[in-house]
Amino acid sequence: MTESSVPTRVRATLPRGLVDRAPADIAAADAMMAKIRSVYALYGFEAVETPFIEYTEALGKFLPDQDRPNEGVFSFKDDDEQWLSLRYDLTAPLARYVAENFDKLAKPYRSYRAGWVFRNEKPGPGRYRQFMQFDADTVGAASVAADAEICMMAADCLEALGIKRGDYVVKVNNRKVLDGVMEAIGLGGANNAGRRLTVLRAMDKYDRLGADGVRALLGRGRKDESGDFTKGADLGEQQIEPLLQLLNFGTTFDLIQRQEFDSVDVSFPNPFLTPPSEWNPDAYGDPERMRRKAQALQVVNPQNRRYDWSFGFEILGELSLLFEMNQTLAAGIRELAEIEATFQATGFTATLGAEDFVERVRIDPSVVRGLEYYTGPVFEAELTFEVKDEAGRPVRFGSVGGGGRYDGLVARFREEPVPATGFSVGVSRLLAALRAIDSPIVAAAKADGPVVVLALDRDEKSMANTQRLVAALRGAGIAAEMYLGSAGMNAQLKYADKRKSRVAVIQGSNERDAPGGPQVAIRDLKLGAELAKSTKDRADYLELRQRAQFTAPEAELVERVREVLARP
Amino acid sequence: MTESSVPTRVRATLPRGLVDRAPADIAAADAMMAKIRSVYALYGFEAVETPFIEYTEALGKFLPDQDRPNEGVFSFKDDDEQWLSLRYDLTAPLARYVAENFDKLAKPYRSYRAGWVFRNEKPGPGRYRQFMQFDADTVGAASVAADAEICMMAADCLEALGIKRGDYVVKVNNRKVLDGVMEAIGLGGANNAGRRLTVLRAMDKYDRLGADGVRALLGRGRKDESGDFTKGADLGEQQIEPLLQLLNFGTTFDLIQRQEFDSVDVSFPNPFLTPPSEWNPDAYGDPERMRRKAQALQVVNPQNRRYDWSFGFEILGELSLLFEMNQTLAAGIRELAEIEATFQATGFTATLGAEDFVERVRIDPSVVRGLEYYTGPVFEAELTFEVKDEAGRPVRFGSVGGGGRYDGLVARFREEPVPATGFSVGVSRLLAALRAIDSPIVAAAKADGPVVVLALDRDEKSMANTQRLVAALRGAGIAAEMYLGSAGMNAQLKYADKRKSRVAVIQGSNERDAPGGPQVAIRDLKLGAELAKSTKDRADYLELRQRAQFTAPEAELVERVREVLARP
Repeated sequence: MTESSVPTRVRATLPRGLVDRAPADIAAADAMMAKIRSVYALYGFEAVETPFIEYTEALGKFLPDQDRPNEGVFSFKDDDEQWLSLRYDLTAPLARYVAENFDKLAKPYRSYRAGWVFRNEKPGPGRYRQFMQFDADTVGAASVAADAEICMMAADCLEALGIKRGDYVVKVNNRKVLDGVMEAIGLGGANNAGRRLTVLRAMDKYDRLGADGVRALLGRGRKDESGDFTKGADLGEQQIEPLLQLLNFGTTFDLIQRQEFDSVDVSFPNPFLTPPSEWNPDAYGDPERMRRKAQALQVVNPQNRRYDWSFGFEILGELSLLFEMNQTLAAGIRELAEIEATFQATGFTATLGAEDFVERVRIDPSVVRGLEYYTGPVFEAELTFEVKDEAGRPVRFGSVGGGGRYDGLVARFREEPVPATGFSVGVSRLLAALRAIDSPIVAAAKADGPVVVLALDRDEKSMANTQRLVAALRGAGIAAEMYLGSAGMNAQLKYADKRKSRVAVIQGSNERDAPGGPQVAIRDLKLGAELAKSTKDRADYLELRQRAQFTAPEAELVERVREVLARP
Repeated sequence: MTESSVPTRVRATLPRGLVDRAPADIAAADAMMAKIRSVYALYGFEAVETPFIEYTEALGKFLPDQDRPNEGVFSFKDDDEQWLSLRYDLTAPLARYVAENFDKLAKPYRSYRAGWVFRNEKPGPGRYRQFMQFDADTVGAASVAADAEICMMAADCLEALGIKRGDYVVKVNNRKVLDGVMEAIGLGGANNAGRRLTVLRAMDKYDRLGADGVRALLGRGRKDESGDFTKGADLGEQQIEPLLQLLNFGTTFDLIQRQEFDSVDVSFPNPFLTPPSEWNPDAYGDPERMRRKAQALQVVNPQNRRYDWSFGFEILGELSLLFEMNQTLAAGIRELAEIEATFQATGFTATLGAEDFVERVRIDPSVVRGLEYYTGPVFEAELTFEVKDEAGRPVRFGSVGGGGRYDGLVARFREEPVPATGFSVGVSRLLAALRAIDSPIVAAAKADGPVVVLALDRDEKSMANTQRLVAALRGAGIAAEMYLGSAGMNAQLKYADKRKSRVAVIQGSNERDAPGGPQVAIRDLKLGAELAKSTKDRADYLELRQRAQFTAPEAELVERVREVLARP
């Protein structure tokens, strides 16, 4: 009864999966994105931005793992009863933008945009319902040179951000390779479209679930730790093996790149690999294997192009040998070969056997990507260095972005097909990576707090004086504030510490009415804190104390504050 | 019948009231916001950002002109049946943030944030359903020194953006003055709260509807052009007049500031003003009026403070004479006097009679602000220069931002009251203003397009060569791209023009296989366009043509492109 008389307070809390951003996060993300923007601009991409809300129909339903309608997307009805949605990525809105402005745009149209996107999903650790993506897309270029360019740009971005060569790799696959392999195992044709998507989504879980988990999802189904059962794609053993072989390419080549030959899984049926013991530069010279692969590659390479031998062509050769060839698979391999040739021409990947050989970009048939709308090359930017997971175990940092070709997405709005390809960076993932490697870009974002001018006397004259001191500092370009609360001197100094200020300026009546004219006390808060921890027996204690706080004529305020701010 | 066989295309269009942003808009807004941020940082404010989605309850309902529940706000239900909303401003989320992190934050807490907000309203010209605000707030400072600081910061921002002194003014009023006047005319007490809000919202329409429109809304009601009738506040004539007098303060002082004494409306009952013919600096010396105002001010000024005479104190003196004094009105005038004293101490407003007297900030009792949650000082930043409206008539540019004190907003979440004040800039309004005055900040945002390297031959060797040229330019920090489409040379040059590129680089087989080693043709597209328009009879035609396109050894590519880019 009495409870009803207590005024109900509103809970100060955010809905789950949503977070606030602190100053250091904002500054670091801004610095990171400015760097990315500069690389994108260097590649001739220009900025464009779309609003957060679109017609639900315009966005379409291309999210992975969303089987029920409307799931994954925040939607609501407009006044005119039409459904609106918050964008769930930046690709679908770009497709709408290009279709709407098709005749105005110079094509091929290269553009980039950073923006928040929304997923109405169950949040988890590091998984939010609002997160930022940074996308770059080329629309109107059918040539896979556009795909190659985007992969090279992603690699340049990562290096511009301070990620060392060898600590990252941009992997490239092709949906046509995946489709071709599925066709080869009897999953071709329009009537198998749904099943192919199920297969792709199962394969996309390889990093998380491993070979056994994916095998289960490709077969009858899988029961997870919580006991929930996910129905599988119901493939037979002979259909499952080739798909797992595709996935194993990536793992194997990662191990080879790291020279961890002993860890390569030989129990796994792996017809394209000689035993790991033979994986050394000399083994590439095996004339019989090379001849067979070159022949296989020529099947898909009617121009009879000569390939320099590389990881990429090695893989493409193996792919050509491994599966029964069909047009889709051949087209996929041919496009990847063209991409690999561009990489070689621009030095993004090197001929095998070169000194200090580190791949920046790599052909890797294990890349899947969960989004439904990809139609050609797909990419994944991975960081290969290790960090500690929540349990303190070393884990590979993993993906920070990806993308691919989506030739059908703009065509949803238009009569003719419009080729397009793009890449999306997960901003907070990448920021976490920069933190992990202590990138200078993140470190530089930590700024000192402003100079705090204490307010000791609150009569009109003192307040006006304090305001003048603050104005003088600001006028000289020094961030400064007057203490605006009601606390005493000690609390004001604590406030300055909490703000991470380097300098506090104090003018009590003693200083203001000093015989030789007004004075100010200038306090170096960092030195002051060190002094408080040090012992008075130090020979230089008095000198230090004098440096930590000193008085100066008011006219010298700006100059002396600058001196302290310049201290290391 | 045949229609059903045509595949249904999705419409490529945005919901009404939403727009895309072009590169020049994004660059200009970014440059503008970087400048604002630098001023905010100079004042000791730090960045913080909240997500776009909050609990509907946490945001509250404080929008003006929204009488039906949920109107004005985009809302939707979460999985757990709780209502979520897109934020409609940045103040309500900040209040939630401060309440949630109260003990962690150093107080007074100065912060800023730029972000998109959403209104589910009828869009109109320049009125969107998604728009950007840039806010600065001080939480935890009860002193109106915090309000004064924010007004000064707003004025500094406008000047930093290139808006000349005299072309803007930040006006300050106090809700307590408005409440005090309403109390004086019999609208005091809790039972009149709703009516007071109706009165404030009517008064807030003064700029748009003029004195007659507001008079109607304060009385029986008003029929607009479309014939729709809005019910009024039902005040009597004797209640309406004082409110209109308050509003007329602003107009009158604007006219005086512009020295347009003849335009002051003398037909209007205006007891505090001598006739405009007497409005000249000498008139301020009228000893009898000054004595009466000083006496009136002393009533609300128990500390017997001596005021320098200024517009601000003139107005406060008049206010003290004009209305029957009550505690609310006295408190409002006292706070405004303290703010005016700060302005004077920091030189943001000058003593009357000073040479070249231009007010940057001004006490103005006509400022209302439509938001319900204000509890003390309210501000409005106005640009006073004229622009042409849609019909080509000169109109004053008007408001680009505003704010005020909202001591009750954080208290919704907590047991104790938490004082707070803030200011919000309408980003696109301000950007339009910078465009109107041709601010260098906006002009600098227009960048040239990238260097376009034409792709003439599409065999593997040529493509690899072109890629190498592009990579060389990018490596030298020059934005460059390879033409990725399938068009011929002329179309490629047109593409470069459309991209606003300054330079095109051409390497056909003639250049590549030149006897002395590979060459490149470098084309100055700007000069080329001028040349096309000029006559061949010009004496320097050949020299110009040589400058517009020339060949150079491939090794000099970067150097020669740089030369052309450096041309005026």
